[in-house]
Order: sequence, then C-alpha cells, then structure tokens
Amino acid sequence: MASEAMERPIVSAFGRVPDFAKGRVRDLRVRWAYEEIGAPYDTYLLDAMQPRGEDYVCWQPFDQVPALRDGGVEMFESGAILLHIAEKHGALLPQDEQGRRQAISWLFAALNSVEPALMMLVTFALFHSDKPWSAEGVETVKPFARQRLKRLADALGNREWLAGEFSIADIAMVTVLHTDMAGLVEQQPVLASYRERAFARPAYQGALEAQINDISETVSLDA
Amino acid sequence: MASEAMERPIVSAFGRVPDFAKGRVRDLRVRWAYEEIGAPYDTYLLDAMQPRGEDYVCWQPFDQVPALRDGGVEMFESGAILLHIAEKHGALLPQDEQGRRQAISWLFAALNSVEPALMMLVTFALFHSDKPWSAEGVETVKPFARQRLKRLADALGNREWLAGEFSIADIAMVTVLHTDMAGLVEQQPVLASYRERAFARPAYQGALEAQINDISETVSLDA
Repeated sequence: MASEAMERPIVSAFGRVPDFAKGRVRDLRVRWAYEEIGAPYDTYLLDAMQPRGEDYVCWQPFDQVPALRDGGVEMFESGAILLHIAEKHGALLPQDEQGRRQAISWLFAALNSVEPALMMLVTFALFHSDKPWSAEGVETVKPFARQRLKRLADALGNREWLAGEFSIADIAMVTVLHTDMAGLVEQQPVLASYRERAFARPAYQGALEAQINDISETVSLDA
Repeated sequence: MASEAMERPIVSAFGRVPDFAKGRVRDLRVRWAYEEIGAPYDTYLLDAMQPRGEDYVCWQPFDQVPALRDGGVEMFESGAILLHIAEKHGALLPQDEQGRRQAISWLFAALNSVEPALMMLVTFALFHSDKPWSAEGVETVKPFARQRLKRLADALGNREWLAGEFSIADIAMVTVLHTDMAGLVEQQPVLASYRERAFARPAYQGALEAQINDISETVSLDA
C-alpha cells in the first residue's frame, strides 16, 4: 500500500484562489484526464495569491499550475501533461496515426489558436477593467475571438468530439471554452452543446469536485 | 525518383504576404525542423491576403499556415507538426524521458505561455494602431510580456538550449521571441544571445532563405 501511494503522480494545484478562478484553474485539465482513466493522483497545493518559492519555479518556470511529477519525471504546461498521461496510459488518444495526429493538432489549437483569443477578452474585462478604454478594448478584440470560435464550430460540425473519439484535445478545448467571459460560446450552438456534452461526463464532474474540494479559501479581488 | 518525390511531405506556406510578415510566417518553424534533419519537403503556396478555399479549411480549420501532409496523414498547428517530425525522424528531442518531457513542456510553453503575451503587443501595436488608446494598450500589456520573458531568461540561465540539447522546443521558442515588436527580448541579454545563437544555425538560415524565396510578392498594409 505504501509503495503504491508513493508511485502516484503529483499534480500542483491551488488551495487558495481569487473567487472567479474556482472550478476553472488549469489543473482541472489534468484531474479530468486522470478521472477519465481512473488513475489516482496526489496534489501539491499552493496559494495563488502569493508568489511561490524558488523550488517551485524550478519545477514550473512561470510559477503557474499545473506541474506534474510522475515516476521521477517532471514536466509543466497542461498540454504537455495531457500528452504524457495519454501516452503513458495508452488512452485518450485515437490509436490510428491520422486520428492521433488530428487529436494532437486540436490539442495545440486549443492552447495556441483559441485560448489566446479568449484570454485577450479576460485581460481587458478583468485584469485592466480600471482603464477608461477597457470596454472598448474588449469590443476591439471580440471579433477575432468570435471568428476563431466560428471556425472551431464549423470544423466540429455535427461530430461528437474533435478527433472522432473523446480525447485530450476535448479536455483542453472544453476547458479553454470555459474561459469565455463574453458569452461568445453561447452564440455558437454547436459549441454550446459540445461543452455541455463534455461537462456531463462523470470524469469532468469528478475533476471539478476534486478541484473545488482542494480549495479551502477564495479571495474577492474587489476587496 | 518519381516515387521518392511523391513521398515528400507537403507544408503549406504563403507566396504573398504583408511586408512585415516576410521571414516570420510560422511555416518557418516546420522548414527549420526539416533543414535540421536534412529531410526534403515540398510547399503548397497560398495567398495570405485572400481567404483560402473550403478545401484548405478542411486541412487547416483556422485558415492559417502551416499545415502538413505526410505519408497520407494530415495535421495542423506548428507545435503538432514539430512534434510529428521529431517523433517520425527520432530527432530534435532528447532520448531520455526526463529530457523529452522537458522539451515537450517547453514546446507548449513557447506557444501557450510566451507567444500569447507577445501577440497581445502585436495586436495593439499593429492591428489596432488606429485606436486612440492603442499606445496605452501596448503599455498596459507590456509588464505581463516582460515578466514572462524574465521568467524564461531565469529558467534558461547559462544553458545553451531549453532541454539540454537543441530541440523542437528551441525552434518554437526562438521563432516566438522573434515576434517581439517592443524590444523586450533585447532587455534580457540571456534571451538576446539565445536567439542569436539559434539564428546562427545553418538550418535556420536555410529555412529563412527558403521561406523568402517562396514569397513572390509582399503587400504594404499602409497602402
């Protein structure tokens, strides 16, 4: 029992976060993958409101979460961690080469072609809301985000998941869509039902619950 | 000879671009990887100034470059393509598991933790320069980009490459650093010499020349 526990992967996550982040921190992606596979993991909890120490920065150079330690190997970036989990467990990626490469393409697309467009909205709506031009800034970057979501919706079409079967690409894309603060996803019915379908998975529910249970305190940024 | 030519991978790229993009389009990453390996490839040239057709969007859902066709398999996103090339050729990734996972972590970091911060600068400095608050917008997002670059510089330290040996992570990171329009990279001597070291590689020079040779026309956005 002791040795089995010692072999568990360790995921870094937050025990204290700003209130808007609860249920949306990126360790959710890693938890979701482990829940899908049914593999246990341990967490290493940090305070989102305090800079972490030098030892953590050696593990996660941008001082963010998640980072992973698994069988003596360290890594960071949710995309890299999802890929590692899928490859190690032979799960959450199609077996055929075309399906596998499509899933990996969509994994990168979630993180490089969709998330940055949505994060620009968050940047102005949330982090720089004090600027007199903040609302106009949001409006200015909205068309780009809307276009990216339109293209995603067109590509998904009436398929259930991005690469045929459910994969790490869907975990990344759905959690990215969840960062939308401007209601743009709802304007694309294909994406709204895609997100709903994914959120209905027991593994997502388990991951969400696990993240929320690990958060012992939330902090209002308005305070 | 004919069958060998038919087996060459096909990379999508631009034959006509806005002038600021020459030498900076993302197919450079893929060309660079093939130059490092010494593997020939063919290009499929598109016009950056015109929407591409539905057939291309089936290959690259966001209507961007690069996309890759290789041995009957299609993929998109420069990160996914770099990973495919490295895995197929057993090159540009460390052999040991820790080195491999570090390189993949840095590949994602380039595209998800560094590029979006620099692209926000480009968005306001270039694409929305007509807004009265454009200059202030650039200043507002600069500290975030500067902090990301500082952390990257701290992590790189006095190492030559991100994951020990030269890898696809360096191809992604160096081309990302090259999108900096605000002189922030020069403020980090560690990163300036890292970029210089990478640009001195014959494979980079070959890739740059190949991209430029394929561009038959540039268009001024001021015109």
